[in-house]
Amino acid sequence: MIKVGIIGSTGYAGAELVRILTMHKEAEIVWYGSRSYIDRNYASVYQNMFKIVDAVCMDDNMEELAGQVDVIFTATPQGLCASLVSEEILSRVKIIDLSADFRIKDVSVYEKWYGITHKSPQFIGEAVYGLCEVNREDVKKARLVANPGCYTTCSILTAYPLAKEGLIDMGTLIIDAKSGTSGAGRGAKLPNLFCEVNENMKAYGIASHRHTPEIEEQLGYAAKEKVLVNFTPHLVPMNRGILATEYAKLTREVTYEEVKAVYDQYYGNEKFVRILERDVFPETKWVEGSNYMDVNFKIDGRTGRIIMVGAIDNLVKGAAGQAVQNMNLMFGLDEAEGLDLVPMFP
Amino acid sequence: MIKVGIIGSTGYAGAELVRILTMHKEAEIVWYGSRSYIDRNYASVYQNMFKIVDAVCMDDNMEELAGQVDVIFTATPQGLCASLVSEEILSRVKIIDLSADFRIKDVSVYEKWYGITHKSPQFIGEAVYGLCEVNREDVKKARLVANPGCYTTCSILTAYPLAKEGLIDMGTLIIDAKSGTSGAGRGAKLPNLFCEVNENMKAYGIASHRHTPEIEEQLGYAAKEKVLVNFTPHLVPMNRGILATEYAKLTREVTYEEVKAVYDQYYGNEKFVRILERDVFPETKWVEGSNYMDVNFKIDGRTGRIIMVGAIDNLVKGAAGQAVQNMNLMFGLDEAEGLDLVPMFP
Amino acid sequence: MIKVGIIGSTGYAGAELVRILTMHKEAEIVWYGSRSYIDRNYASVYQNMFKIVDAVCMDDNMEELAGQVDVIFTATPQGLCASLVSEEILSRVKIIDLSADFRIKDVSVYEKWYGITHKSPQFIGEAVYGLCEVNREDVKKARLVANPGCYTTCSILTAYPLAKEGLIDMGTLIIDAKSGTSGAGRGAKLPNLFCEVNENMKAYGIASHRHTPEIEEQLGYAAKEKVLVNFTPHLVPMNRGILATEYAKLTREVTYEEVKAVYDQYYGNEKFVRILERDVFPETKWVEGSNYMDVNFKIDGRTGRIIMVGAIDNLVKGAAGQAVQNMNLMFGLDEAEGLDLVPMFP
Amino acid sequence: MIKVGIIGSTGYAGAELVRILTMHKEAEIVWYGSRSYIDRNYASVYQNMFKIVDAVCMDDNMEELAGQVDVIFTATPQGLCASLVSEEILSRVKIIDLSADFRIKDVSVYEKWYGITHKSPQFIGEAVYGLCEVNREDVKKARLVANPGCYTTCSILTAYPLAKEGLIDMGTLIIDAKSGTSGAGRGAKLPNLFCEVNENMKAYGIASHRHTPEIEEQLGYAAKEKVLVNFTPHLVPMNRGILATEYAKLTREVTYEEVKAVYDQYYGNEKFVRILERDVFPETKWVEGSNYMDVNFKIDGRTGRIIMVGAIDNLVKGAAGQAVQNMNLMFGLDEAEGLDLVPMFP
Repeated sequence: MIKVGIIGSTGYAGAELVRILTMHKEAEIVWYGSRSYIDRNYASVYQNMFKIVDAVCMDDNMEELAGQVDVIFTATPQGLCASLVSEEILSRVKIIDLSADFRIKDVSVYEKWYGITHKSPQFIGEAVYGLCEVNREDVKKARLVANPGCYTTCSILTAYPLAKEGLIDMGTLIIDAKSGTSGAGRGAKLPNLFCEVNENMKAYGIASHRHTPEIEEQLGYAAKEKVLVNFTPHLVPMNRGILATEYAKLTREVTYEEVKAVYDQYYGNEKFVRILERDVFPETKWVEGSNYMDVNFKIDGRTGRIIMVGAIDNLVKGAAGQAVQNMNLMFGLDEAEGLDLVPMFP
Repeated sequence: MIKVGIIGSTGYAGAELVRILTMHKEAEIVWYGSRSYIDRNYASVYQNMFKIVDAVCMDDNMEELAGQVDVIFTATPQGLCASLVSEEILSRVKIIDLSADFRIKDVSVYEKWYGITHKSPQFIGEAVYGLCEVNREDVKKARLVANPGCYTTCSILTAYPLAKEGLIDMGTLIIDAKSGTSGAGRGAKLPNLFCEVNENMKAYGIASHRHTPEIEEQLGYAAKEKVLVNFTPHLVPMNRGILATEYAKLTREVTYEEVKAVYDQYYGNEKFVRILERDVFPETKWVEGSNYMDVNFKIDGRTGRIIMVGAIDNLVKGAAGQAVQNMNLMFGLDEAEGLDLVPMFP
Repeated sequence: MIKVGIIGSTGYAGAELVRILTMHKEAEIVWYGSRSYIDRNYASVYQNMFKIVDAVCMDDNMEELAGQVDVIFTATPQGLCASLVSEEILSRVKIIDLSADFRIKDVSVYEKWYGITHKSPQFIGEAVYGLCEVNREDVKKARLVANPGCYTTCSILTAYPLAKEGLIDMGTLIIDAKSGTSGAGRGAKLPNLFCEVNENMKAYGIASHRHTPEIEEQLGYAAKEKVLVNFTPHLVPMNRGILATEYAKLTREVTYEEVKAVYDQYYGNEKFVRILERDVFPETKWVEGSNYMDVNFKIDGRTGRIIMVGAIDNLVKGAAGQAVQNMNLMFGLDEAEGLDLVPMFP
Repeated sequence: MIKVGIIGSTGYAGAELVRILTMHKEAEIVWYGSRSYIDRNYASVYQNMFKIVDAVCMDDNMEELAGQVDVIFTATPQGLCASLVSEEILSRVKIIDLSADFRIKDVSVYEKWYGITHKSPQFIGEAVYGLCEVNREDVKKARLVANPGCYTTCSILTAYPLAKEGLIDMGTLIIDAKSGTSGAGRGAKLPNLFCEVNENMKAYGIASHRHTPEIEEQLGYAAKEKVLVNFTPHLVPMNRGILATEYAKLTREVTYEEVKAVYDQYYGNEKFVRILERDVFPETKWVEGSNYMDVNFKIDGRTGRIIMVGAIDNLVKGAAGQAVQNMNLMFGLDEAEGLDLVPMFP
């Protein structure tokens, strides 16, 4: 039984880790970290866990935690994981960081977009970007995994095969993404009040959202060139779900079958990526509560562009589910253990 | 492996049966019945099931079905199950009927409230009302289980211990219930359109809803007297969830502890009924996607009444989950098999 | 042109006052009070008002305000109006208080339910309870109007004619009310976050909500007896709207026509109360954005009870609209001026 | 008083016409056409209109109607208006067609995208495209106005000034639009059920939506070149609102101030187009219920693109409000009469 500690277990992503790991047959949570709710019963913070989780919230002490668990998940704001991690800790436990601290290889890019100084740049090199479908073999050997962001998971995987195979002109890629409100976290902020979000839709972080450089770096590796994209996130009045609609010029004339074959080549054997049937396009509800990513595309001969659409549950494949998928890989378990979650509809 | 056939697998309750049974370790669906979608791929009707369910929808032939399966779930409109069932069929398979056909013992009451003639009154007597927490032992021996309605499950269980122990004056019981919209089914009707339901709330079926006699009969058995209640359902702009708020005069002065002890006596060992802590009241989101029923109460000394509140997911404990719980009992399995569903929040 | 000052213009009720008064032909807002946003452009707090309201938020100085306006609306938390008002101020301006400070005649009841000491009990006597349909003539002469609460407006008006005419047994009255989330205000609190409210429903303030004594006092005047009720509010995932479902024993056998005649007697000439046609029951969306209250009833012969249902927009007839209706009465204007708002559907 | 007839008054756009015209001081509806509800009381179809509209639904007889009214609004499916209109009718009444029949000048484009044969191509030439901010003078003189589509109004106005001034490369324009569900109409179709839309988001009509050629034609006039765009609509779980996010390459380096000046040049004096302040981006809720269009932009120096965002209420500026704005122009009234609707928030 793998012993798990969670730092930040009372945010929405942390709570989703708890939900998933509770159903995981080979892992057991032994530390529910939450700076805001120390000593409080976990189930009183998340009443859905009443009679399911019987534990009290603990502090963020990573050193003490390292002595008690096999793996630590950090589901905390940027900067915290980098400020706590050390060689001594990494020599004792594996770490899966759900924050952005170790996602971007160029520390100056990180510091510019996040506006903070990186406290542990020495570990950026070894950290593996935990997009399982892309970096599976590296994840298996990693001590420190940088779990991808929610928007980035969806944005990258939607375009990845075509970027990799050179079918799209990376200079023309535009990503218009829409997210449910759980992505904004559980902080009590006015813009996230029910009455401000319900019956409303808006773009935000235009040309400045922090997931931009992460997408650019990963798609740059795929395309083997420097990539700049327009990434625009939008807030949607729903709890969960991310839909990414992506546009790019095709580099040559292609048929549906050719493009389909490229997606199949990369995802045909992937359990968690479903290439939908022709002309069926992803809807967020079809993946809700599950670790699936649905994807499809449409060639527009009139404009010479391809439109790609991907959908995930931002808290599962976009956060906690992918983190558990990474844990499974790191510990040599069945990659899908604990993740056989059937999407809930309606 | 128990072989399962579902008649009506493409309604919302039928689809929830599919979701739950897909994760059930000892059952396998071999017949996806759906009169509306015969020969169509099931996953094209419920895209969430893409790459999970690989099957084609079948007709409603109960006789043929009886030769292929161990248990039939009928998740169909009233009247259908009663029109199909026969002694010959019941001698070969067990039936769990999610419609109202066999819930009410007095056929004239059924015919009056439902406005149809009962086609198989000869089986009403042996049918067991499948409210597991109340009729567990009978369910275990049943050939034919009448799975309770969604409102009724929540309404009955919320008041049951106090009705049984004579703590409330049954002549004063008022049940004000609120339901998510999935309870209205997947039929394409104007009142269920998004724009008609969203940002709206209404009462309906006032003094005439068909779940009324079912509640009255069952609470009558508990109280050992004829019971008449006011039951008022309301439509709420959410997909899932039922909340029942119930009011009754106390028959004598009681303390919180006394009432709590009565609830504990009936539900203390029940896995799927959670009596919340003092002054914490049920919210539908805390049980969403799960088979739990949450319940609590408040004594109002000023008025001499007790207010009881219960919450369930109408599609799980109120339909498919309870049906599987009944199946587990009928086949001698662990009652919770396939039902270890952790509520999803948010 | 009536000069208006609003203290608390940036809460949801205050903003609704601004919306309504902006369309009012005989009133002009000259003071947008908001302690939280002093010196900030009003339209930057409510962007819907961009290019419509060109003003800066001011402090809460009631004395200074009294010199500049004809009427002050206080849309603030309990206690503030009572702490600011004085004989000197009341001699110069009329005050319409949207808080609870002057709604309850018995100061000890107020202090017990609200848990604060009343700062100006000397004005409670002269304050008129501004339920226009009930106290119209008194409102016309008032210096100080206590604008009713949202739940109370809906709860009282729904039962008022039957209470007044002795058709219902007041000892059996139960009020089960459901409200949209704007009733919770614009404070940044965790329970009001989108993800906590959406897809969720709950009861709250069971047997303890502060609107209870207000309802009891007013219905007591109508029934000419001391009244105790069970009032249970619920939070619904929608922005606006209150639905009250009320239950009571009839004091004698009555026909639909008799009860209808009683409602007609009280509301037949009321512009803002619509008695719906037989068996058509109120829905909150049908009054959204308007000052209407829709009401209807159903006699349940089986239980000897009557079920009454009322619906309002909590921010209009439940707050700002009724406040403007009171202002119109106090200044001798057409009672409906500025309130010809057609409900918006969908 | 202008006498108005509405053909198709019981769809959502028709009902919004009724709502707006009810508050219009110089117009009066005398014909509530509705093929589906002939002889039925209008207020029983839209209960929000109870005690406001006292009229019965009529048939679609345009000839008879022409003898009774000054202007006819057709809020009907494509093809109907074209099949009813004639020179004789146009000589007697003005027509404002909310369908697509007369929006597209090239009849072969219309027939290809809509898949029907145009019944009155002879009137396409004289029909004026009723985008008031662009074609105001022509509208004033028109007998037949083609009221723009909802997506198109928002999509065109958002980019219009930059297209006209040559600041954006039209070959790179991508329009990603999101709409509330009222845009799908009041037809009882499964995909529009509450449970299918709520908590869900999807793209639809990818590379094939019928509003595409309308956008291309109008932006083509502005840019004075043939324009092809990628237009992708999305369905959002809200009743009202369209948000268009548009991307294009800048044709040269520009500053914020330069672009702002271009928007000001076109919209600075427009009552119904609000250019938001720097870095404040449109949200659909800020225009809900009103005829406003909010717009803003962001220059992304990294990619050389500009991102433009526009928001409207699809039923007002995107349909009924704009139709009334056109009527006001055609009859020489104040363009804003009946349209002084303050957006409702929340």
